[in-house]
Amino acid sequence: MDFKQALKERANYIEDLLKKYMPKEEGYQKTIMEAMNYSLEAGGKRLRPILTLEACKVVGGNEEDVIAFAVAIEMIHTYSLIHDDLPALDNDDLRRGRPTNHKVYGESMAILAGDALLNYAFEVMLSNSINKEDSNKYLCAINEIAKSSGIYGMIGGQVVDVQSENVQISKDKLDFIHLNKTAAIIIGCMRAGAIIGGANDEQLEEITKYAKNIGLSFQIVDDILDIVGDEAKLGKKVGSDIENHKSTYPSLLGLDKSKEIARSLIDEAKLSISKLSEETELLDGLADYIIAREY
Amino acid sequence: MDFKQALKERANYIEDLLKKYMPKEEGYQKTIMEAMNYSLEAGGKRLRPILTLEACKVVGGNEEDVIAFAVAIEMIHTYSLIHDDLPALDNDDLRRGRPTNHKVYGESMAILAGDALLNYAFEVMLSNSINKEDSNKYLCAINEIAKSSGIYGMIGGQVVDVQSENVQISKDKLDFIHLNKTAAIIIGCMRAGAIIGGANDEQLEEITKYAKNIGLSFQIVDDILDIVGDEAKLGKKVGSDIENHKSTYPSLLGLDKSKEIARSLIDEAKLSISKLSEETELLDGLADYIIAREY
Repeated sequence: MDFKQALKERANYIEDLLKKYMPKEEGYQKTIMEAMNYSLEAGGKRLRPILTLEACKVVGGNEEDVIAFAVAIEMIHTYSLIHDDLPALDNDDLRRGRPTNHKVYGESMAILAGDALLNYAFEVMLSNSINKEDSNKYLCAINEIAKSSGIYGMIGGQVVDVQSENVQISKDKLDFIHLNKTAAIIIGCMRAGAIIGGANDEQLEEITKYAKNIGLSFQIVDDILDIVGDEAKLGKKVGSDIENHKSTYPSLLGLDKSKEIARSLIDEAKLSISKLSEETELLDGLADYIIAREY
Repeated sequence: MDFKQALKERANYIEDLLKKYMPKEEGYQKTIMEAMNYSLEAGGKRLRPILTLEACKVVGGNEEDVIAFAVAIEMIHTYSLIHDDLPALDNDDLRRGRPTNHKVYGESMAILAGDALLNYAFEVMLSNSINKEDSNKYLCAINEIAKSSGIYGMIGGQVVDVQSENVQISKDKLDFIHLNKTAAIIIGCMRAGAIIGGANDEQLEEITKYAKNIGLSFQIVDDILDIVGDEAKLGKKVGSDIENHKSTYPSLLGLDKSKEIARSLIDEAKLSISKLSEETELLDGLADYIIAREY
């Protein structure tokens, strides 16, 4: 089976899991469940859940044990997109080729649906962690997710990103944005997966390096695609960074240098993972995919 | 010491705890920490944290063990107020006599500051629950908070509340709103406190009844104060329910009947608590305070 086929199958598996863990659309509060599920079902690459499961497996764990974490990280990712798309933030009408949440459900419901998905992510992780043998391990794993999605992670990155529009920023600040806005929750979900999988300190360190490097590379490629990408494939407008006078890797370092850095981060990531196991096909493939992707 | 003095001292104690647990305002993402802390510091009665500590103590636990939960529930309450005040929701300019978060920091920052406070609440609970003796108890307690603040709790109530403006609704639906929008997180934080305090099933049941009854009564009194309250004392406009054609206890059942129900809920709450301990002064006083309050 080639890598693209394997990745597609993993994504389908995640789709099935999401359907199982999504809230049922019922009760007086039915509309918000519909709004949550509308965005959860909108597709996407499902990279974060796939990475969560792989991180657990690559250190010798059982992926069944981290399913709730895989689902939860996609809920957190999805809530961040819903809020990002709001008129007060990026004001986007389209996401993955479909109308954004607030365009369908209205702004107040989109705000609450985002809140609800963040909260629900914790509900899913917690309710599936109770009464297990090693409770402290589960607490540590949920804590990794929480840290990575908050002000010292994703939200921290988003805030500085919002404040950096129309301003020339330093490479240090740009790295802060990339590391926190994008890499942090990849680090968080992979560390959570590895912790539940029983990783030792050394394994956890290599997982963290891999996650950080593919996360940074992912964001640099995002910046590159905003210049050279195909709108049809991306499902969104290109050129918005230039339009918003945003500092990016290409704007600060040029397109060629950016591609070079993105490539070398991927090589480093693969080196880390090679230290962990001999069965690294999917994680290797994912690293290569991140640099080769067109959307 | 009289009750009002005791309550004031507890609130001051909570203020000190909040200061200790609030994020430091530093780093590139400093603005969001300022925005979070602006609303956290805005005062208020701090009833939820006080109730968290009392629920732990009344079942024989040590209040030190639930400090992180007390702080977290106030963060969750505060985030819900920040998002509630947004232009897309209640569009309020004033909260506790001060400009609302989005009036000071702008809408995008207020959305993110709300998100950040919800996330941070979990960070605080989780990071303070790791490596304790009975990890599963802590998982259960955090799970109580998570359930109570999500779509089967506070957010569920908010959604139905938002959808019920300008519509005549049934008493059943109104009770759903009150139970979820207001009572749920009081139930959640008190159950969390009691679980950490080592409550048995029976104690947990009485705590839950107390919390539910004071929560419902609190919201009925809120409805009543929106008609008969003093704007200066409340720190907000009165008459907004009538203006928004909202169904409330007074509008459905009349003012006198509403007061009667609020009173009887408080009596029931006090009965529950009397079964738990002989030292119920503060919880009794709080129940009475809820019905007697003017703001």
